[in-house]
Amino acid sequence: MTNHRLSVRCLRTFVVGPALALVVALSATSADAQDPLPSWNDGPSKTAIVGFVNAVTDQSGLDYVPPAERIATFDNDGTLWKEAPVYTRVVFAFDRVKAMASDHPEWKNNPALKAVLDGDLKALAALGMKGLMDVLMTTHAGMTTVEFKTIASDWIATAKDERFNKRYTELIYQPMLEVLAYLQANEFKTYIVSGGGVDFMRPWTDKVYNIPPEQVIGSSIVTKFEMRNGAPVLVREPKIFFVDDKDGKAIGIQRIIGRRPIASFGNADADIPMLKWALAGEGMRLGMLVHHTDAEREYVYDRKSVVGKLDKGIDDAATGGWMLIDMKKDWKVIFPVH
Amino acid sequence: MTNHRLSVRCLRTFVVGPALALVVALSATSADAQDPLPSWNDGPSKTAIVGFVNAVTDQSGLDYVPPAERIATFDNDGTLWKEAPVYTRVVFAFDRVKAMASDHPEWKNNPALKAVLDGDLKALAALGMKGLMDVLMTTHAGMTTVEFKTIASDWIATAKDERFNKRYTELIYQPMLEVLAYLQANEFKTYIVSGGGVDFMRPWTDKVYNIPPEQVIGSSIVTKFEMRNGAPVLVREPKIFFVDDKDGKAIGIQRIIGRRPIASFGNADADIPMLKWALAGEGMRLGMLVHHTDAEREYVYDRKSVVGKLDKGIDDAATGGWMLIDMKKDWKVIFPVH
Repeated sequence: MTNHRLSVRCLRTFVVGPALALVVALSATSADAQDPLPSWNDGPSKTAIVGFVNAVTDQSGLDYVPPAERIATFDNDGTLWKEAPVYTRVVFAFDRVKAMASDHPEWKNNPALKAVLDGDLKALAALGMKGLMDVLMTTHAGMTTVEFKTIASDWIATAKDERFNKRYTELIYQPMLEVLAYLQANEFKTYIVSGGGVDFMRPWTDKVYNIPPEQVIGSSIVTKFEMRNGAPVLVREPKIFFVDDKDGKAIGIQRIIGRRPIASFGNADADIPMLKWALAGEGMRLGMLVHHTDAEREYVYDRKSVVGKLDKGIDDAATGGWMLIDMKKDWKVIFPVH
Repeated sequence: MTNHRLSVRCLRTFVVGPALALVVALSATSADAQDPLPSWNDGPSKTAIVGFVNAVTDQSGLDYVPPAERIATFDNDGTLWKEAPVYTRVVFAFDRVKAMASDHPEWKNNPALKAVLDGDLKALAALGMKGLMDVLMTTHAGMTTVEFKTIASDWIATAKDERFNKRYTELIYQPMLEVLAYLQANEFKTYIVSGGGVDFMRPWTDKVYNIPPEQVIGSSIVTKFEMRNGAPVLVREPKIFFVDDKDGKAIGIQRIIGRRPIASFGNADADIPMLKWALAGEGMRLGMLVHHTDAEREYVYDRKSVVGKLDKGIDDAATGGWMLIDMKKDWKVIFPVH
């Protein structure tokens, strides 16, 4: 078993173990006939994904994994949809500040909210985490979970990205949609594990990714159960409950899923604990990081970026056992063509 | 819609709305031919369960619910398995204290641990929540999640209940196993939502209830991500993270599932927020509380009990819209006969 696992981990460096090479070779014919990843160019990334899926679903093989244990986790921002130059969830929070400001003249006295209203991102950045928390708590708390769902749903249905002039749910990565569909067709349970707010994602992940609400793990704020007019509500309180980022991704996976993923996809150093947690399990595993290398079709960023910083993720890939997906080389298209 | 929902809620008081009565009548023939609940006596409880399942799965009916939205939540202690006279999870913690004591002579200086070692439950009770926390944190923290899983698995495989001389996983309720299987066969996703520790339940719920780890919601303690000898571990810290009880059950359901259950089963006042949350949704709903009324075959307890207190759950059933399951009258057998 150990041999096969190491083989997959080392695919990027072309050290393909004999057993896995056989699996890949045997499956090449059927893969060609009906390519599950048509938006992927041939290369080590595509070979690794197809080889992995073939190996863990082959009932006669040594690396077979029963369907119940086929858990795959995906970061969202920068892995399944565009995150640069600003996280969409931050755009959402800023838009909420602007939409609500007319009812709150007192916000002019709050440095963070004022910075957002003035469009002064430098002033906001200077306030650090405290400033961002002010913005988030003002816009994300104080309403019921049902009310927040409506707010998030309405926004995502209409807001558009400036550069691409498309809705954010159209700025998802077609090659990753194919990976999701390919894994789902092979009885994987696919989860989102994101630093973003779970309640911001759930209204649309089912439609966009075929990932139901109960398979979305994210950051959350404290909620309080109350009876209002005889009916129960959950009120969103201005207090962080859990930050599902960095170490929190591994922690959140164990707490909510309770099984170790056998495949995990991210794009940033913040995803490394999730990858490590997945790769440390027994049997064959697959870990991949999307490397944003395409300035023309999307963005180029890695070591120096604030959003989606990818530094150790590059340096430690070989020792850590994960692979880098080269967006420019590996992907025929970036976004879905409608 | 409202009419049908009210009908189900009022079944116990025999106010059956015409539409539901029709549904129940039409389904009677096939239900008799292949009874999905053979351990249930005929009566309002069985009628309500079968009527509800027929209604929400009838694609031509007004109350049809798509499979993806068929979420059912179950309390564990006292609803799916025996909880009297002492919660099994407390027996587990006490057994752990005894098993670990020889390595910890200093425990004699801790009043709570000493009380457990002396078998002096009154002394422990006198220490209140602080005492119980001392016991829980001493026995449940300080190891990795993988180590704890082994400890819990080993205990549950061997420990036996004194009165019945059976393993705890044999002291599950056969009629509730049939409800689980019936719902699962009808494409429901069945969840456990328990005040008990999630990591204590997950090692055995799949085998015993056909409920996988990712569908078990429970109380949890803080975990910390660490690298040990190059491998990632999650270390259990002596600090409560979330208490999945009372209001926490509704909160935990929304946070982890993100959908409102359409059916919910409990047995105690602590389950009322979960029932209220489920019953407040649109469309047909089912809420039930197991009433422990059988001293001979199990136990009798309700309004005055410390374990599984059921007081408001009886008084508010009619207005709240849930039904009571009368263990003595409704159940032909209590535990599985092997």
